[in-house]
Amino acid sequence: MRRTLFTQDHEDFRGLVRDYLTRKVVPEYEDWRRAGLVPRELFTDMGELGILGTSVPEEYGGGGQRDYRYHVVIQEESARAGVTLGGLRTHLDVVVPYFLGLADAEQRARWFPGLASGALYTAIAMSEPGTGSDLAGIATKAVREGDHYVLDGAKTFITGGYHADLIIVAARTSHDPDNRRAGMTLLVVEKGMPGFTVGRRLDKLGLPTQDTVELSFANVLVPVANRLGEEGAAFSYLGRNLAQERLAIAVGAVAQTRAAIELTTGYVRNRVVFGKPVAHFQNTKFELAAVVTELEAAQSLLDAAIAALVAGELDPADAAKTKLFCTEVQGRVIDRCLQLHGGYGYILESPIARLYADARVTRIYGGTSEVLKTIISKSLGL
Amino acid sequence: MRRTLFTQDHEDFRGLVRDYLTRKVVPEYEDWRRAGLVPRELFTDMGELGILGTSVPEEYGGGGQRDYRYHVVIQEESARAGVTLGGLRTHLDVVVPYFLGLADAEQRARWFPGLASGALYTAIAMSEPGTGSDLAGIATKAVREGDHYVLDGAKTFITGGYHADLIIVAARTSHDPDNRRAGMTLLVVEKGMPGFTVGRRLDKLGLPTQDTVELSFANVLVPVANRLGEEGAAFSYLGRNLAQERLAIAVGAVAQTRAAIELTTGYVRNRVVFGKPVAHFQNTKFELAAVVTELEAAQSLLDAAIAALVAGELDPADAAKTKLFCTEVQGRVIDRCLQLHGGYGYILESPIARLYADARVTRIYGGTSEVLKTIISKSLGL
Amino acid sequence: MRRTLFTQDHEDFRGLVRDYLTRKVVPEYEDWRRAGLVPRELFTDMGELGILGTSVPEEYGGGGQRDYRYHVVIQEESARAGVTLGGLRTHLDVVVPYFLGLADAEQRARWFPGLASGALYTAIAMSEPGTGSDLAGIATKAVREGDHYVLDGAKTFITGGYHADLIIVAARTSHDPDNRRAGMTLLVVEKGMPGFTVGRRLDKLGLPTQDTVELSFANVLVPVANRLGEEGAAFSYLGRNLAQERLAIAVGAVAQTRAAIELTTGYVRNRVVFGKPVAHFQNTKFELAAVVTELEAAQSLLDAAIAALVAGELDPADAAKTKLFCTEVQGRVIDRCLQLHGGYGYILESPIARLYADARVTRIYGGTSEVLKTIISKSLGL
Amino acid sequence: MRRTLFTQDHEDFRGLVRDYLTRKVVPEYEDWRRAGLVPRELFTDMGELGILGTSVPEEYGGGGQRDYRYHVVIQEESARAGVTLGGLRTHLDVVVPYFLGLADAEQRARWFPGLASGALYTAIAMSEPGTGSDLAGIATKAVREGDHYVLDGAKTFITGGYHADLIIVAARTSHDPDNRRAGMTLLVVEKGMPGFTVGRRLDKLGLPTQDTVELSFANVLVPVANRLGEEGAAFSYLGRNLAQERLAIAVGAVAQTRAAIELTTGYVRNRVVFGKPVAHFQNTKFELAAVVTELEAAQSLLDAAIAALVAGELDPADAAKTKLFCTEVQGRVIDRCLQLHGGYGYILESPIARLYADARVTRIYGGTSEVLKTIISKSLGL
Repeated sequence: MRRTLFTQDHEDFRGLVRDYLTRKVVPEYEDWRRAGLVPRELFTDMGELGILGTSVPEEYGGGGQRDYRYHVVIQEESARAGVTLGGLRTHLDVVVPYFLGLADAEQRARWFPGLASGALYTAIAMSEPGTGSDLAGIATKAVREGDHYVLDGAKTFITGGYHADLIIVAARTSHDPDNRRAGMTLLVVEKGMPGFTVGRRLDKLGLPTQDTVELSFANVLVPVANRLGEEGAAFSYLGRNLAQERLAIAVGAVAQTRAAIELTTGYVRNRVVFGKPVAHFQNTKFELAAVVTELEAAQSLLDAAIAALVAGELDPADAAKTKLFCTEVQGRVIDRCLQLHGGYGYILESPIARLYADARVTRIYGGTSEVLKTIISKSLGL
Repeated sequence: MRRTLFTQDHEDFRGLVRDYLTRKVVPEYEDWRRAGLVPRELFTDMGELGILGTSVPEEYGGGGQRDYRYHVVIQEESARAGVTLGGLRTHLDVVVPYFLGLADAEQRARWFPGLASGALYTAIAMSEPGTGSDLAGIATKAVREGDHYVLDGAKTFITGGYHADLIIVAARTSHDPDNRRAGMTLLVVEKGMPGFTVGRRLDKLGLPTQDTVELSFANVLVPVANRLGEEGAAFSYLGRNLAQERLAIAVGAVAQTRAAIELTTGYVRNRVVFGKPVAHFQNTKFELAAVVTELEAAQSLLDAAIAALVAGELDPADAAKTKLFCTEVQGRVIDRCLQLHGGYGYILESPIARLYADARVTRIYGGTSEVLKTIISKSLGL
Repeated sequence: MRRTLFTQDHEDFRGLVRDYLTRKVVPEYEDWRRAGLVPRELFTDMGELGILGTSVPEEYGGGGQRDYRYHVVIQEESARAGVTLGGLRTHLDVVVPYFLGLADAEQRARWFPGLASGALYTAIAMSEPGTGSDLAGIATKAVREGDHYVLDGAKTFITGGYHADLIIVAARTSHDPDNRRAGMTLLVVEKGMPGFTVGRRLDKLGLPTQDTVELSFANVLVPVANRLGEEGAAFSYLGRNLAQERLAIAVGAVAQTRAAIELTTGYVRNRVVFGKPVAHFQNTKFELAAVVTELEAAQSLLDAAIAALVAGELDPADAAKTKLFCTEVQGRVIDRCLQLHGGYGYILESPIARLYADARVTRIYGGTSEVLKTIISKSLGL
Repeated sequence: MRRTLFTQDHEDFRGLVRDYLTRKVVPEYEDWRRAGLVPRELFTDMGELGILGTSVPEEYGGGGQRDYRYHVVIQEESARAGVTLGGLRTHLDVVVPYFLGLADAEQRARWFPGLASGALYTAIAMSEPGTGSDLAGIATKAVREGDHYVLDGAKTFITGGYHADLIIVAARTSHDPDNRRAGMTLLVVEKGMPGFTVGRRLDKLGLPTQDTVELSFANVLVPVANRLGEEGAAFSYLGRNLAQERLAIAVGAVAQTRAAIELTTGYVRNRVVFGKPVAHFQNTKFELAAVVTELEAAQSLLDAAIAALVAGELDPADAAKTKLFCTEVQGRVIDRCLQLHGGYGYILESPIARLYADARVTRIYGGTSEVLKTIISKSLGL
């Protein structure tokens, strides 16, 4: 169905992104994939083109658009081009919003120009070995000493941690036995600070260009001026942007689902078995009809949720439903599309195999399907 | 998510419908269900209130609104009230559009006032024993003799056929060996015409108030003035309104899915097992979270399709996707809701058991899921 | 795959059952279905033929076979013949085992000849309005007064309660605040005892010939001689025969699944749409291949479980897995088979519609799928 | 449920295999996985222990056991140990049976001792770029010239092709326009024959230790003495061992499903979220109950099929059902098990991630699910 979400401005932006990806990313992408990393220049290039900083205020060199649809366009075009841009989604839709929402005047002056230009790339460090989705269980500690916090601990599963210039670290600054959620603070650690080391890149099932690392902090002195927001208030900040964070995953899920269906439709038309194109068989037709129907439902739900987010009225349960549904559709659909590729679908040189490997994480990160169901059921009064 | 489909006019209309159903239908409904029939007066009552004829031109006493959303409201409110209104959906969304689209001036004057007032209730007779979805295989014959057609044949699965005053019958008027689709004509048979008999009401799995009958025609003389459209052109008429016909089934499916979830949510809160409300168990919470998520997706897809229909731009493949998806959601969700009712869910006095029995037909009538997948795959160029 | 479960004795018995069903039941079945009841004579006829009492000791006129496979044969042949025999399965596989396991010498002499001959038909009354699967919550009370218990209370969802001559009633005889499971006793109520009334037959989604009723007990004087087992020990008896009870439901589920596939295979060969038999379409072939594969898995699991039961080594978790799996297969497969019937599948005169309606309860009674999952997960040490 | 498939001999053999894997394979496995290859010595080691050649006749140094259960044990123990043994399954259950069935006396003397000792490792080359499952479409040609065939062509997706000493190549030796299946011949190409080159190892989604390669043949002179069976008769040989080939995949699927459930059960007991072990949540319990139930069904079906194979009575349709069902269970179950691992499940160091990646091919190779459904539906007379 005709989508009604985008204006001409978004479509112009889409042209810019598509052109950049086609010219600069697609030709090099196979190398990036093998290296297991995007080059750092990707972000400065995108910054120069004005693609990266649409959400940063104009006075700092950004686009001044608190309009999430520009980020939607980036994900849609990446999927269309068959590439993933490392941890860019996390940077744009998870980390930068913390800076936009919490930075004080001095911090804005210090960091926002870099966020707009791509000179500063960011990550956020929550998960620890042993905590997973349970943020109240964080063990990393920060002890105030004069103008600094002394930070100690370890984090894992940190998307973008290899490239990041600024890392927002959630640390415990005090302990209240009656309130597990109190006493957590956000500190911005800078690349190169003594005692801060980036550990190994984790070998994942998919998402090869997205660097996911372990980080460790041994007596890192973080200036108090690098604290984001109030001391002890981190927990109240965490939920603020969850709707966008989750929607961003759903956007990627739907865009990749669409890409999978398009390349499968092409494949079955050309691939001949038993003397006939695979597309000739009724099973093929019915499978593709079924998956395109699921895609249409996912896109409708997603577009309604994006419109609600842009209007400032997307509630957490609806964001949860959208992520839950769109990532489940992604899983089901890409599995069926891979099957239609036969043996070729199992070879990593085939795009469908990559989409399959990439897809498995979306039902887990940014809130597992189980966490989302808990949120949704609460919204039903259960 | 907040729906954006309806205007204040629709909401006012909704109030009218809800009030009528609450006062007049709900109190009597159990009797109707046992009788296996709605009373004929239902339609005249609704006609008087102006609920029935919104689509009939104002000059004939109707509402003059070619706005499908009024019909959506009727289905939503019926589901909300836990009632089904016999074959009303078929009358409104399948049969009346044939009259609106094909009647000539004389026929409009003769029939439209009755359609607006509820004095005339209608049905359409396509299926025959042995043809099913394959309309080109129709064996009922009409032979022109002067000012009349002589109609012979039998029809089955005719929704509303018991109450109908006017029945559009698809009959073969000529035979072209090279074109199975040529030579079919629509004739309007009137209740009481000699040779026309209404056979037994079929005993169905669900939809007890919807009369579904067999009809037979033995030398029925149908005036040529009762022919709808051109002789031999029926096949070209059949597809015209398919988008609305299918959407109407999807509307019912989603409205009943919503009703099922709402009553299940209430049930699990009150029903105690093992000393706790059923709602206390995580499985219950997760099941309801899962089904409400499917509902949200179905509603989003449906509302987008309704908006497209109202804008005159819903294409057949998108209507097919919408029916396919919404009826599958209905099947899956109501099954899960019934399960949460335990043994009570199997007793027909429980509304969920009735919703379950009613639901099974929606993946079949108005185009089976298999027929829909064929249409959808063609739209993909397969 | 070739089944290895049965010996020649079982196959001879199968011949007897098949012959009886063909001659006596099938010709009358449509009347029974409309009446919503099997005739009481069914059981005496089967008793005379020696089909009914295989499990009753020979000294009382029974077959003396504690071999569950004879009951398997009865269910398989009923499904094959397209009939259901009221509450016979409950009588044979749920109630009679209580008598066989708990009756004292006097009771054996009094009741066993009737169980063997079909003169006595039985039911068991556990569920109450408001308790469902939670037997510890039973409110029906029995107070000892001399040689009698005075029984008061109400039961619901009682299979076979209309025809039953003997009804085992679970009642509370004492109350231990520290042990909800203590204090429950089994009493045999006889048809015609003053104060005992059989209420309305519940109108169910399916299983029309199986009478399911409400029972009420108002100061019913039950002789102490009618107590089955020890006072207060009922809870320990309840679990004893659960494996067979659950297996019996799985047996029916698989047998009906097989029947559904066989009649669907026949239907699609004969039914012509768009000029070709439905069997011609690849979707039809694939659907039937998929369901017959599920059937084969269910049958293998079931036969392994039956063999284990016969060997006296079927544990409750394996019985639970078997019922869970076989009833889910039944639900999924019959739904797909019905779909291949198109509109005819929704008419109750078609056997597939009846199988569909009958099937929905098997995931609920005899332990809901949720109760079974709880048992299974405990066996995993969770 | 207790399995009845194995005798004490098999259990003794199991002890041998388990011991070998524990001592020799598990400690080195991580290196093999990184190298993307098992060491060639694996097979000679296993040969020495008598694990490898159970199916080779005793006169050539083998075990003389045409008992497939020994191979079952190897796969079960590999899965239990969390390792995959390269292309061993293909060697044992696909290729060696061709030698056993088709080799003439001279070939037996030449090759069988090596098959027994592990000195000869084998592969079979059917698939070509562009043919997939459609063997009649093979383009590789062999032209007879005196005592040799001149072989030209290319093969792809060849399991074990990197290590193989002997490769059975399907080639076209003549062309019959009326019979696509005629004219195909099996030739044994030996490592090192001039003109035979092993191409790149394909990078797959999973199965990292299983070398899958492209092969090319440029004027390779293959002695006529290396022809397996009759010229032109290859097609009739292909189907002979299909039951075992497919069963072998099902055996691996079920063994890996079992491994996945066992490690997940352990994981959820130890992993703490929100202050409680994951095992505490009802969703976790129900998920594990559901998957262990599917496993039980798959194991029952598989064991029945293995018993039938051993008895020489497994027909192709039943082998197809078994592979179809067991590989679908594998896919569904491992996906659910991975989900219970949360983010850790996406990291390749976690065994569940590897099981997930390995699993995706089993619904494709050895006959895709679609090919299997075609076979099954034919057995239903459709």
